[in-house]
Amino acid sequence: MVHAGAMSGSGNLMDFLDEPFPDVGTYEDFHTIDWLREKSRDTDRHRKITSKSKESVWEFIKSLLDAWSGWVVMLLIGLLAGTLAGVIDLAVDWMTDLKEGVCLSAFWYSHEQCCWTSNETTFEDRDKCPLWQKWSELLVNQSEGASAYILNYLMYILWALLFAFLAVSLVRVFAPYACGSGIPEIKTILSGFIIRGYLGKWTLLIKTVTLVLVVSSGLSLGKEGPLVHVACCCGNFFSSLFSKYSKNEGKRREVLSAAAAAGVSVAFGAPIGGVLFSLEEVSYYFPLKTLWRSFFAALVAAFTLRSINPFGNSRLVLFYVEYHTPWRRKTTRLGKYPVLEVIVVTAITAIIAYPNPYTRQSTSELISELFNDCGALESSQLCDYINDPNMTRPVDDIPDRPAGVGVYTAMWQLALALIFKIVITIFTFGMKIPSGLFIPSMAVGAMAGRMVGIGVEQLAYHHHDWIIFRNWCRPGADCVTPGLYAMVGAAACLGGVTRMTVSLVVIMFELTGGLEYIVPLMAAAVTSKWVADAFGKEGIYEAHIHLNGYPFLDVKDEFTHRTLATDVMRPRRGEPPLSVLTQDSMTVEDVETLIKETDYNGFPVVVSRDSERLIGFAQRRELILAIKNARQRQEGIVSNSIMYFTEEPPELPANSPHPLKLRRILNLSPFTVTDHTPMETVVDIFRKLGLRQCLVTRSGRLLGIITKKDVLRHMAQMANQDPESIMFN
Amino acid sequence: MVHAGAMSGSGNLMDFLDEPFPDVGTYEDFHTIDWLREKSRDTDRHRKITSKSKESVWEFIKSLLDAWSGWVVMLLIGLLAGTLAGVIDLAVDWMTDLKEGVCLSAFWYSHEQCCWTSNETTFEDRDKCPLWQKWSELLVNQSEGASAYILNYLMYILWALLFAFLAVSLVRVFAPYACGSGIPEIKTILSGFIIRGYLGKWTLLIKTVTLVLVVSSGLSLGKEGPLVHVACCCGNFFSSLFSKYSKNEGKRREVLSAAAAAGVSVAFGAPIGGVLFSLEEVSYYFPLKTLWRSFFAALVAAFTLRSINPFGNSRLVLFYVEYHTPWRRKTTRLGKYPVLEVIVVTAITAIIAYPNPYTRQSTSELISELFNDCGALESSQLCDYINDPNMTRPVDDIPDRPAGVGVYTAMWQLALALIFKIVITIFTFGMKIPSGLFIPSMAVGAMAGRMVGIGVEQLAYHHHDWIIFRNWCRPGADCVTPGLYAMVGAAACLGGVTRMTVSLVVIMFELTGGLEYIVPLMAAAVTSKWVADAFGKEGIYEAHIHLNGYPFLDVKDEFTHRTLATDVMRPRRGEPPLSVLTQDSMTVEDVETLIKETDYNGFPVVVSRDSERLIGFAQRRELILAIKNARQRQEGIVSNSIMYFTEEPPELPANSPHPLKLRRILNLSPFTVTDHTPMETVVDIFRKLGLRQCLVTRSGRLLGIITKKDVLRHMAQMANQDPESIMFN
Repeated sequence: MVHAGAMSGSGNLMDFLDEPFPDVGTYEDFHTIDWLREKSRDTDRHRKITSKSKESVWEFIKSLLDAWSGWVVMLLIGLLAGTLAGVIDLAVDWMTDLKEGVCLSAFWYSHEQCCWTSNETTFEDRDKCPLWQKWSELLVNQSEGASAYILNYLMYILWALLFAFLAVSLVRVFAPYACGSGIPEIKTILSGFIIRGYLGKWTLLIKTVTLVLVVSSGLSLGKEGPLVHVACCCGNFFSSLFSKYSKNEGKRREVLSAAAAAGVSVAFGAPIGGVLFSLEEVSYYFPLKTLWRSFFAALVAAFTLRSINPFGNSRLVLFYVEYHTPWRRKTTRLGKYPVLEVIVVTAITAIIAYPNPYTRQSTSELISELFNDCGALESSQLCDYINDPNMTRPVDDIPDRPAGVGVYTAMWQLALALIFKIVITIFTFGMKIPSGLFIPSMAVGAMAGRMVGIGVEQLAYHHHDWIIFRNWCRPGADCVTPGLYAMVGAAACLGGVTRMTVSLVVIMFELTGGLEYIVPLMAAAVTSKWVADAFGKEGIYEAHIHLNGYPFLDVKDEFTHRTLATDVMRPRRGEPPLSVLTQDSMTVEDVETLIKETDYNGFPVVVSRDSERLIGFAQRRELILAIKNARQRQEGIVSNSIMYFTEEPPELPANSPHPLKLRRILNLSPFTVTDHTPMETVVDIFRKLGLRQCLVTRSGRLLGIITKKDVLRHMAQMANQDPESIMFN
Repeated sequence: MVHAGAMSGSGNLMDFLDEPFPDVGTYEDFHTIDWLREKSRDTDRHRKITSKSKESVWEFIKSLLDAWSGWVVMLLIGLLAGTLAGVIDLAVDWMTDLKEGVCLSAFWYSHEQCCWTSNETTFEDRDKCPLWQKWSELLVNQSEGASAYILNYLMYILWALLFAFLAVSLVRVFAPYACGSGIPEIKTILSGFIIRGYLGKWTLLIKTVTLVLVVSSGLSLGKEGPLVHVACCCGNFFSSLFSKYSKNEGKRREVLSAAAAAGVSVAFGAPIGGVLFSLEEVSYYFPLKTLWRSFFAALVAAFTLRSINPFGNSRLVLFYVEYHTPWRRKTTRLGKYPVLEVIVVTAITAIIAYPNPYTRQSTSELISELFNDCGALESSQLCDYINDPNMTRPVDDIPDRPAGVGVYTAMWQLALALIFKIVITIFTFGMKIPSGLFIPSMAVGAMAGRMVGIGVEQLAYHHHDWIIFRNWCRPGADCVTPGLYAMVGAAACLGGVTRMTVSLVVIMFELTGGLEYIVPLMAAAVTSKWVADAFGKEGIYEAHIHLNGYPFLDVKDEFTHRTLATDVMRPRRGEPPLSVLTQDSMTVEDVETLIKETDYNGFPVVVSRDSERLIGFAQRRELILAIKNARQRQEGIVSNSIMYFTEEPPELPANSPHPLKLRRILNLSPFTVTDHTPMETVVDIFRKLGLRQCLVTRSGRLLGIITKKDVLRHMAQMANQDPESIMFN
């Protein structure tokens, strides 16, 4: 409440102003916060608690609780995010299988759970356990044949449409903010923008439910982005329980950064990758303290998820996810009818996906299969190699073999699936449902990678005398692993889409548990970043943010133009002069008129209009509230009362009305730069200190003001003028 | 060269000032750099190159080369750091074995290399290959017995003393900066401090050589800290080859951050851990661009090391390292005689270490043994369990067994080794030789952890009906892994010493390749940080920095006091007024006198002494050079000439000498805060923008100046006044 600079003495008349104004210190929707101010408010609060803590044991305990509340919030976020992720997993498992059939012993069992108790010993037999009935078996008692196929096909499409329809309706009616991946908005919020309700309880509930529905419906999307959003909603919810976080937008964002890490942690089962993702991709202000807390939250979340998931075998170490696509349409004809759009895309997806085994299975199963190496016992079509009947080697060291018919079939199916995935993901990603892009991107990369891998493998087998193969590919050796190609392809594709580097590699190796592949993965990440950067510096999230016009000051953009503060500040040449308050000569009415006629967030206060010497800055909200309060509760304040910001009241004629002292609401340490300051430095200051506005002076005289929006507008202008300049950084 | 703000027109008289002054823009030894200024200088350079690049193809190619030079430097650093690390490893292997014996076929072979070609098939037999002769065998032809033992013991001590003496003499004579781990100094340098020669070529050479010597001598120290220093020297060397980095202290520090990552990468074989270590522990200014480059450098370094090391089997994934100890004596009597100190400590180390197998072997071998789980074929004393003769299980799934005699012997030896390690490491760490603390800390933690692990294992075996064991420890199951306890112990001990968290866990799992242990490791890291923080917030590096009194503005310290800029700025009350220049009324002689009488780094320039309105800031170095240049090269400049900083010369009497225009050297955008700005905000600004000084104004009038040293002094004062306040952050 108390301003950073406003700590000097108070007149006794105004002591009641010590009572908090309602709502002062909060921000309006779609406005940006002032990080420096939030920080000083937190320090004030903290100082108060520390000094009180010496008064009594109870206050001391309270101060300890306050100091530990950060860790408590992290614990709660970790627990809730992990629980939700676990529940989502279980529900998705069940509903995905529901599209194909139902368990007779208990309809809420998934295929795997249903056959869990079955006696069959091999995996293939267990898949055919009698308790699990396909729809054709249940409805017309046929398990094979054309009619059974068609019936199953129809049921598959029907369920997919039902799930998708439910999801889009829920989003539309209850929580429009629940659509998309949420990452670009969370990035923007973390950079200091206010979007009310985006992280609210309704969004949390609806996004969780609809996420289950859309993933189960088989659309080409993933659940990691949405899970990050869900985790941030949890973070927002728990931070509203502690006044330390609920009343301070800056502190709240520290919690949200950690919650994002917990979200990625449960989405991929990659706690360290989550922390790095939050640091590299999502967060704006990420002090080391937040690093440790994120780490803790990510740990708790991963642990909770692991304890919930009854098939904890691979879930924590293999594939969920999806996010954003290579481009995004802003408006299409279909886009105006979101429900219809979802139904159409779902129908197309279901119809095309069912016949091809690689698109029918869930995307995470697909990726898992593509990453797998072919052991001798592998039954997958991708592993249909022609075995040498004389081979006596141990089963886990199989030399390169010629491909069989199955592999060639798989190649064709993969090629079709690849084209389908690329096209359908682009359309899926803009729809009004929760959707992530990690899994589809990885699937696309993994398919391409596996195909290249198989190609190289066969080339090496048939031509092991070629120079490139000669040294490391003797006949009978196992020299090409197509699964590794798939992994590298997935990393490269994901890296190209999101421009992640370090966090990408960490997530990939947390996913696959393969430390020995770190070098190819790193090489893939760096190469894909270089190649993608040649087409444009923006990752998918930044592109989305720009598309939506959010006021996001990207730390990655460099500003290298020669402009000065004077070129950007308002008023421009020819514009009316800056609206300022004088320290001791304006009346209440003057100020009220000024407030009414302008919509600025605040006004600089100067000694006099002649000298233009700056003494401070007054926030619009606080001015309005102070005047309202004074008019209601303070004797003798009328429209003609002089308002003063100095320590002592000005000398007034004898019969003038009682003056109104407003020093309390004056920020005595507004941020200033000179008019000659290069914009490069100004951008740096806005970015690093999280300013909302900055005053421009020359030789101590106030000249103008630069707001965050002015900075963003100027940066956009300069980038358009000279697009190639950003290439050389 | 050209100042951030000094971009306005130049009089034609002064055009020769366009020629660069020699040495302008560099800093003096033990001074701090101005990050904002370095940044604008780089942007200017970059802008020049970009505009030139449109002139001709050659200039365009040059601009491309310039843009890629960052990656080239990273590549070179990675290559050299990896090569040096590989050479150090090979040399240490050889020299460590030299203490015990020599290879007859080629004296430069280590024990392992010597027996490489030997025909014996088991590991134990191969260790006794005939080509490798112990000193006793070689000198008196006895391989067993008391006299052989004593001779070997003496040779061991002799070699250790020789290595240590050589190392300390080299450091003393050629490169005093090569002693210690170097991490605290590198942290300080990265924060913007200049220590000339600390990263020089001599330091690089001597540190590399002496590191081999001290590690081989068997002292209780590790090589990771010094390897980071060595990598930073490489970084400094390569950045001096590119003008982009050699002429800009800010850009140079970006390279050094990446070099530190490469250093950790080769020290532990942990490229990702290295990047995180650089981010979390070492670096000060770490933009995302540096993150990517560090990643690349770390990757290249790890790859180079792997290709050099002929026994690349485990080296990249197991133990090097050491760093700093729990406390550090500043002066002891012995400390005055560094050579004697080293000799004494080495003698004590060698005498005590030889008889105990756990201290005789190299520390990394010890850690490796402690981390290992006991397979059925393991011959180590630590694995001397009593086997059930009826056991028919596969060899890799051994249930808990009762401990045999060997384990009890090992426990005693470990306990003694633990005490010895703790004590000797404390003394070793302050000596004037290259020394790291990672490995000794990890060894201490691993020993304690293994002992606890064995204790719990035996408890669980003999009391598997106790409540804590009942659920997860059925008889005949393998429920306690002492090796994991050792790993967790090592992580906890290292975490407590350095206060690393995320980077610690990443390094540990890159070291061990064990992703499944991530949860216990994370829990250990967080717990050890909490416990250690209860004793004091400082890690070993920060403690060392404070002990040495380096001007390091730690991002982790929070400043929460209520002081204002006015309390910290100079001049204080009662002090003479601030030395300022006026914009157009001082003569050359006045300024020369002012420069002679004061030693400030620069002077604020005001409109006049009466108005005190600030217009800019002039650097001392540039003033001196400009006056010197003008006096030598410009007609009519005498002591009486008026110096002016305005655009137009002031109106002077007719017969006055020619005035001297100095606008070019005036920084028109000095950083200012008001006197009411809370110090908390000022500290934040210094930290985030990397300022060197900041001017204090009130209502546009100049009041005083705050330098980085003033800020540090004030923070230290406040921390001493109220030490408990930092506890509650």
